[in-house]
Amino acid sequence: MKKYKVGILGATGMVGQNYIKLLEDHPWFDISYLAASPRTAGEKYGREMKDKWQMDVAMPENVLNIVLEDVGNVEKIKGKCDLVFSSFGMNSDEKIRDCENKYAKFGLPVVSSSSANRHTKDVPMIVPEVNSGHLEMIKIQKKNHLWDKGFIVTKPNCSLQSYIIPVYALMKAGYEVKKMIVTTLQAVSGGGYPGIASLDMIDNVVPYIGGEEEKSETEPLKVLGKIENGNYKNFDDLKISAHCNRVPVADGHLACVSMLFGKNKPNKSEIINIWRDFRPDIQGLNLPFAPSPTIIYKEEENRPQPKKDRQEGNGMAITIGRLRECNVFDHKFTCLSHNTIRGAAGGGILLAELLAKKRLI
Amino acid sequence: MKKYKVGILGATGMVGQNYIKLLEDHPWFDISYLAASPRTAGEKYGREMKDKWQMDVAMPENVLNIVLEDVGNVEKIKGKCDLVFSSFGMNSDEKIRDCENKYAKFGLPVVSSSSANRHTKDVPMIVPEVNSGHLEMIKIQKKNHLWDKGFIVTKPNCSLQSYIIPVYALMKAGYEVKKMIVTTLQAVSGGGYPGIASLDMIDNVVPYIGGEEEKSETEPLKVLGKIENGNYKNFDDLKISAHCNRVPVADGHLACVSMLFGKNKPNKSEIINIWRDFRPDIQGLNLPFAPSPTIIYKEEENRPQPKKDRQEGNGMAITIGRLRECNVFDHKFTCLSHNTIRGAAGGGILLAELLAKKRLI
Amino acid sequence: MKKYKVGILGATGMVGQNYIKLLEDHPWFDISYLAASPRTAGEKYGREMKDKWQMDVAMPENVLNIVLEDVGNVEKIKGKCDLVFSSFGMNSDEKIRDCENKYAKFGLPVVSSSSANRHTKDVPMIVPEVNSGHLEMIKIQKKNHLWDKGFIVTKPNCSLQSYIIPVYALMKAGYEVKKMIVTTLQAVSGGGYPGIASLDMIDNVVPYIGGEEEKSETEPLKVLGKIENGNYKNFDDLKISAHCNRVPVADGHLACVSMLFGKNKPNKSEIINIWRDFRPDIQGLNLPFAPSPTIIYKEEENRPQPKKDRQEGNGMAITIGRLRECNVFDHKFTCLSHNTIRGAAGGGILLAELLAKKRLI
Amino acid sequence: MKKYKVGILGATGMVGQNYIKLLEDHPWFDISYLAASPRTAGEKYGREMKDKWQMDVAMPENVLNIVLEDVGNVEKIKGKCDLVFSSFGMNSDEKIRDCENKYAKFGLPVVSSSSANRHTKDVPMIVPEVNSGHLEMIKIQKKNHLWDKGFIVTKPNCSLQSYIIPVYALMKAGYEVKKMIVTTLQAVSGGGYPGIASLDMIDNVVPYIGGEEEKSETEPLKVLGKIENGNYKNFDDLKISAHCNRVPVADGHLACVSMLFGKNKPNKSEIINIWRDFRPDIQGLNLPFAPSPTIIYKEEENRPQPKKDRQEGNGMAITIGRLRECNVFDHKFTCLSHNTIRGAAGGGILLAELLAKKRLI
Repeated sequence: MKKYKVGILGATGMVGQNYIKLLEDHPWFDISYLAASPRTAGEKYGREMKDKWQMDVAMPENVLNIVLEDVGNVEKIKGKCDLVFSSFGMNSDEKIRDCENKYAKFGLPVVSSSSANRHTKDVPMIVPEVNSGHLEMIKIQKKNHLWDKGFIVTKPNCSLQSYIIPVYALMKAGYEVKKMIVTTLQAVSGGGYPGIASLDMIDNVVPYIGGEEEKSETEPLKVLGKIENGNYKNFDDLKISAHCNRVPVADGHLACVSMLFGKNKPNKSEIINIWRDFRPDIQGLNLPFAPSPTIIYKEEENRPQPKKDRQEGNGMAITIGRLRECNVFDHKFTCLSHNTIRGAAGGGILLAELLAKKRLI
Repeated sequence: MKKYKVGILGATGMVGQNYIKLLEDHPWFDISYLAASPRTAGEKYGREMKDKWQMDVAMPENVLNIVLEDVGNVEKIKGKCDLVFSSFGMNSDEKIRDCENKYAKFGLPVVSSSSANRHTKDVPMIVPEVNSGHLEMIKIQKKNHLWDKGFIVTKPNCSLQSYIIPVYALMKAGYEVKKMIVTTLQAVSGGGYPGIASLDMIDNVVPYIGGEEEKSETEPLKVLGKIENGNYKNFDDLKISAHCNRVPVADGHLACVSMLFGKNKPNKSEIINIWRDFRPDIQGLNLPFAPSPTIIYKEEENRPQPKKDRQEGNGMAITIGRLRECNVFDHKFTCLSHNTIRGAAGGGILLAELLAKKRLI
Repeated sequence: MKKYKVGILGATGMVGQNYIKLLEDHPWFDISYLAASPRTAGEKYGREMKDKWQMDVAMPENVLNIVLEDVGNVEKIKGKCDLVFSSFGMNSDEKIRDCENKYAKFGLPVVSSSSANRHTKDVPMIVPEVNSGHLEMIKIQKKNHLWDKGFIVTKPNCSLQSYIIPVYALMKAGYEVKKMIVTTLQAVSGGGYPGIASLDMIDNVVPYIGGEEEKSETEPLKVLGKIENGNYKNFDDLKISAHCNRVPVADGHLACVSMLFGKNKPNKSEIINIWRDFRPDIQGLNLPFAPSPTIIYKEEENRPQPKKDRQEGNGMAITIGRLRECNVFDHKFTCLSHNTIRGAAGGGILLAELLAKKRLI
Repeated sequence: MKKYKVGILGATGMVGQNYIKLLEDHPWFDISYLAASPRTAGEKYGREMKDKWQMDVAMPENVLNIVLEDVGNVEKIKGKCDLVFSSFGMNSDEKIRDCENKYAKFGLPVVSSSSANRHTKDVPMIVPEVNSGHLEMIKIQKKNHLWDKGFIVTKPNCSLQSYIIPVYALMKAGYEVKKMIVTTLQAVSGGGYPGIASLDMIDNVVPYIGGEEEKSETEPLKVLGKIENGNYKNFDDLKISAHCNRVPVADGHLACVSMLFGKNKPNKSEIINIWRDFRPDIQGLNLPFAPSPTIIYKEEENRPQPKKDRQEGNGMAITIGRLRECNVFDHKFTCLSHNTIRGAAGGGILLAELLAKKRLI
């Protein structure tokens, strides 16, 4: 099989590095293009990143000699890529939007892990196991912009990855989740590098992450929404309230969730069975990054734990535990997902695989 | 003023050590008696604890030469104490209850930080700022047992100290809190020593603490309850649901709270004013360990934090921050209390001070 | 190729669990026997360890249904194993020695990671890359005991793994290292589970590990020694002084080493070349757990680091960095090895592979 | 007694904040002046620092309303201060030197905790307990520059504070220390704020701190040196080699030290007695920040530890433990000092107290 050539915009940041690490031996994708800030343009990736490479594996051979391009200079990518991953770090949403639009206009499918275009009205925000059907918005988006081959798709924020799939699984099984109160304990890698200072994370937790609670509350409603007459209609029958905390964990976002069902209420064993039996629509597509099973329910009373469970399904599975009655709502549980894999680069790769399989690139 | 002589049962454990540290220069109390397991009996405290003292200050001079007694040998305390603090660690509730009863029967007021007698029907569970009136149960308790001078009072669990006072303040101001969903991020010192292994707390959090959620949900209902005709009547108009997590913090339990009010709903500034203006009934008593103010509201968007705020009011104040609208209930906030001070030994000392001032010892 | 059947003595402890994890897909060895304390005997491993399994991967399928045996009941192993790994935890050296001797007498090759027999005069202590020749002691040992097939071999302590190979490489190249002052920063997994308390490892380091400095100083002298006329002759031309510290790192022991050479002194680039070019005698044997290269020298000024480098060579490589002049001796450097892989179970497996290849089992 | 008015240059950085915290209730010094970068000039300290204050106590009342000045605008200080503390963070040494010189020229005694002027030939580098006699250099310095009242004094780097006093005590007692190999385990607060990233300090240590080893090796030689004919003569009879590591500890630098004596070698109990009996020349001066005793020797086998011992002497004492024979040199031990107190602001304050007592300001 001929492999797709992929580029990474923002290749020097943490998410970019994670893309490079995770794509090292990808069966469908080959990295052919790396772009970052103008300052780095013209330098070989291996040289530029010698002292900045943060991953816990050595820099893959295949990127050492790729010469970095200025991400603003879109012409350079001509003929080199079938798709780009947009993994910008700390720029303004406006600048990122401009840049992603420029690449889409230039003819490139853009898979974005940034938040800039998540609420753009004709840009789908996809969790492949939940709303692959929203990819139909691509056609509309292309038409709106008169784009020929290029388009933009996004993935939602890392903080909600652990609960969106379990909640969707229950909904798909016919149980309406009406209200959720969620408290997250989020890993420091979610803040990029250098991110939060060690002085703030030794013997401490910080009960605030800028912008994270809003994303955790609103993004699921678009993901769970519908497309009607070419327009997004957010799901408005679920209310989520989020408390987001930063904790001294390197990787893995944990969430404590209380949920209230509508009239039709499943019992504990039904819920666990729904999760364990959950087979997403994409199951049959054999996407390399799709974990199987998608959801792992742990019986031990003190799981999931970031250190022990974040690598399940190569960092793409959702682990859940501690399902029990909630004194205030119906049920409560704890869930976990790997924030830099499922929640960032891995999620982007799975989405790109879906695009490839659906012949959208 | 003549000082009270106090004893510590379980003097070698972590809570016992905290009592000794906090009582070092207490203006009203002098340590005159230390008891622990039979194995240690006959040894001087300073010698026994040479390699076991865990506090971050040197062992106080005043306990170095006190000879440890067998806690089971109650006769030994004869004439030596006006009050004992019961700070047992890992024994069964039944054994602790027996032991506390034995000391009470022997004529000693027992201030217990253990959970053994918290739900005993004639034993009050006191947060001095909330329900000092419940001390009237002492009279009934003495009568029930035909005890002359001895009695037992308890304090509630460390996990709920950060929210019980703020919620009570709101209720006192006329606003009914009907439902609360609480997620705690609890420090490792709450588990005693050695407590949780470092392997479980490096790059990890553990979403489970045995028995802690039940305590966090039910104990507030007794504290907020009433005594009618000599019987406890728990407050039954509030539902609490708790998720308790262990995080890699040495001291300081943080709680993320969402709360639903009854019909009468305060707005944000009213709530903050109620907390800031909160003056508990014990305010005028000038108890040495009573913090002033009781509640500190922090305006910074990322507070309270364990490391920066746990020492407020010498570890006895409650710090709160991040009051904001809750998407599901009415309001949400984050609160913090020092678990080994307010939540354990310090809370016990404050309670003993209250007893002293009320001439109950 | 027919696989060897191997047993694990002390299968429920941390080292035992690591053996099971690392042997999961081993090409030469199949686990056929698991033994632990009498209390666990008769229980299936999967059931017994349900809440005690500490590894960051799920328990391998192949051990779930193995029924645990009482380690003291050596008869049970009859016909079931070709070799046993002895991975005892906290027993006395004397008991461990008795037990290992019992298995050897019963006819089993015993590969021990415990310290009990390391200084027994006819028991070799092997680092395969350094002194595979010492395996000749097995013959003598068998003769001494009149053992037919069984024998005992040991591996040295985890704390010295990072520097013994680099120092040996220099010696082999003709440079005598005369004196070394070593300070280790050791991971908590080296202390087993539960090991050191989290209260001692949050915002703290502990400058003491019982027995570790002696091992770090004396064991290398046996490993570097010779066998003359059937007797061990320790290497007495090297003096090592060790400071051992426990630091809040999960895995990976780091060592800061200053070394003084004899008259013949290599310069910096010679040393680095010697390390990079180091080819141990076992190189050609294609042992599955032998890392290639054995030693990795990092040019970055702030490496090696436990988190980033411990997995090199699947946890079996030695990483070194920061070679520079020493103001007092000749050179100094920093080195790292993975304590639970190279320093414990992985090192034991490599040694067993060597025995297999040499047809000693 | 009339209090001295003191200013802080670099008042918004971490060292500046520590000065403010430690000076809150100082009996001799009142803060009257705070200067920082031009950007902050004109703003009240309390307002500017609202979200930047990093200390674990609330911002002292006495600085809330002090208006920050531009540190480059030296005229502003006219008539406002008797002495300034220079606590610059991240500027170049050259800029800091220029600035300190400007203030000295303007007539102000400058107590610097920066490294910029430490090796300036007529600037003394003082540890009050070791070389208070070096203050005679001030007279020469003033003469060199034709300065009337102003001058500059410095204190050495935080990394060497734990061993310079113990070594000096031995020398003073007549035992020559000839060689020392030192490995430090340094706290993250030594790197300022934000300093090292949490991603680098969770489950990790970093065996490198830029510039720190050179300082640890060379600065003691100036401190232990002599002034002859108005010129500094470094002590050249001691060789120090340092390995500096960053560890996940908030405060407190630990050092593991091996030392070789000259011909006259003390035994273990002599050394401990020398340390315990050490009475520095400044002992009789009753300087408020001078700890008494200066050195605390701990008998416990696992001390000193940062968390438990850094607060000894209000963070100004040196704690030592584990004195034992060194296999390579004569003796080895572990020592600790609080890096932001003794090693930075506290050390500066003690030096200023010495200047005040000696009537040099």
